[in-house]
Amino acid sequence: MESTMYNQLLMSPLFTGLTTGELTEILAHIHLDFNTYERNDVIVLQDDRCDRLTYVLRGKVKAEMIDPRHRFVLTEVFDKPFLIEAYNMYGMKQAYEHTYVIVEKTNTVSMTKQEFHSILMNYRIPRINAMNLLCAQIHRMQKMMRECEAETVERKIVQFLRHNALSCKGEKELKMKMEDLADYIKETRLNVSMALRRWNEAGLVEQQRGVIVIKDLGMLEK
Amino acid sequence: MESTMYNQLLMSPLFTGLTTGELTEILAHIHLDFNTYERNDVIVLQDDRCDRLTYVLRGKVKAEMIDPRHRFVLTEVFDKPFLIEAYNMYGMKQAYEHTYVIVEKTNTVSMTKQEFHSILMNYRIPRINAMNLLCAQIHRMQKMMRECEAETVERKIVQFLRHNALSCKGEKELKMKMEDLADYIKETRLNVSMALRRWNEAGLVEQQRGVIVIKDLGMLEK
Repeated sequence: MESTMYNQLLMSPLFTGLTTGELTEILAHIHLDFNTYERNDVIVLQDDRCDRLTYVLRGKVKAEMIDPRHRFVLTEVFDKPFLIEAYNMYGMKQAYEHTYVIVEKTNTVSMTKQEFHSILMNYRIPRINAMNLLCAQIHRMQKMMRECEAETVERKIVQFLRHNALSCKGEKELKMKMEDLADYIKETRLNVSMALRRWNEAGLVEQQRGVIVIKDLGMLEK
Repeated sequence: MESTMYNQLLMSPLFTGLTTGELTEILAHIHLDFNTYERNDVIVLQDDRCDRLTYVLRGKVKAEMIDPRHRFVLTEVFDKPFLIEAYNMYGMKQAYEHTYVIVEKTNTVSMTKQEFHSILMNYRIPRINAMNLLCAQIHRMQKMMRECEAETVERKIVQFLRHNALSCKGEKELKMKMEDLADYIKETRLNVSMALRRWNEAGLVEQQRGVIVIKDLGMLEK
């Protein structure tokens, strides 16, 4: 394995905190799949069974979610390393909630759920990392849920996006009829349209054929 | 150990799915603390370090949360077995978010975080149970976050309670000035007051010296 990839593994959420020696020892016992994907390749499909833990090492990937009730499609773009829906390997549904499509050449590393269990069983640091990961996500969601009700239409749109997105930062595309969005956040269509126009004038949002393109959700929150 | 307690352990979230033989084998290797508490005993205090996993086997316990920004105090009453904040053993803060006070004689079983790790390391079913528990909580929260904006003042109050409570059912007491609640959910004080009066007339809610008593949050959601 090339040494940059090795270092990226050492910084991955599951292996962070290990020494190189400890990681080498794990790699000798656990089978990891390294993959390279090209533009338009699909890593997983929404509703596929989630029985693998996949970590995007580098590249650019878009995650698309068709709302289960078909009210909207939300697409997010990731160009930094990230873990694909670890929390969907367990619980009631155990299915991916997004389709992941490659935007630019991407490297991933993945393991089966069984291999993940073997890591939890045998290695202390990855075990603590896994528990920390899941619990930190619970804490982030708790924090979001406990926020005050949004007052302005802008805040309501941002909250809608944050509550439905995988991450609160970066590029998002929302394919949704403006009247459906208005209905969802209990605002008038005119108010939603005016908010989008204000963002558009500030260079933060574009509208293209029924799709609202947010350049960086983090910037809208300011 | 008496046999009812043994059976309750077998049905607890961490041990469910084990045979009696497997549980006996775990109990031979892991030290569990069994405790009996009397009325007004305090199990843990809000902000105490969360370094134990405690399961309430039977009894009646109230969980009180002082909102970190001191806008309200929310109290919930539990009279069924429940696990105390397992998700707070990990992540950034690792502190309890509630104070647990005994209402009626209560039995608990608990273990240190270290013992919990030893279980994760050595036993397959509890390991899967622990992962399922945390992931199911993430799924529940996701579902709540993805709901449409509430339309009526009643729905907004219910949503406020659900988003801040440990459970969506049972008795809750909210100590909060009516104007603060109105401000939180972005409604007028008059609207909040009228909603509470309607619930009061329906026998669902009582107001006592600045405290809103909800007999069963599950009933308000209807």
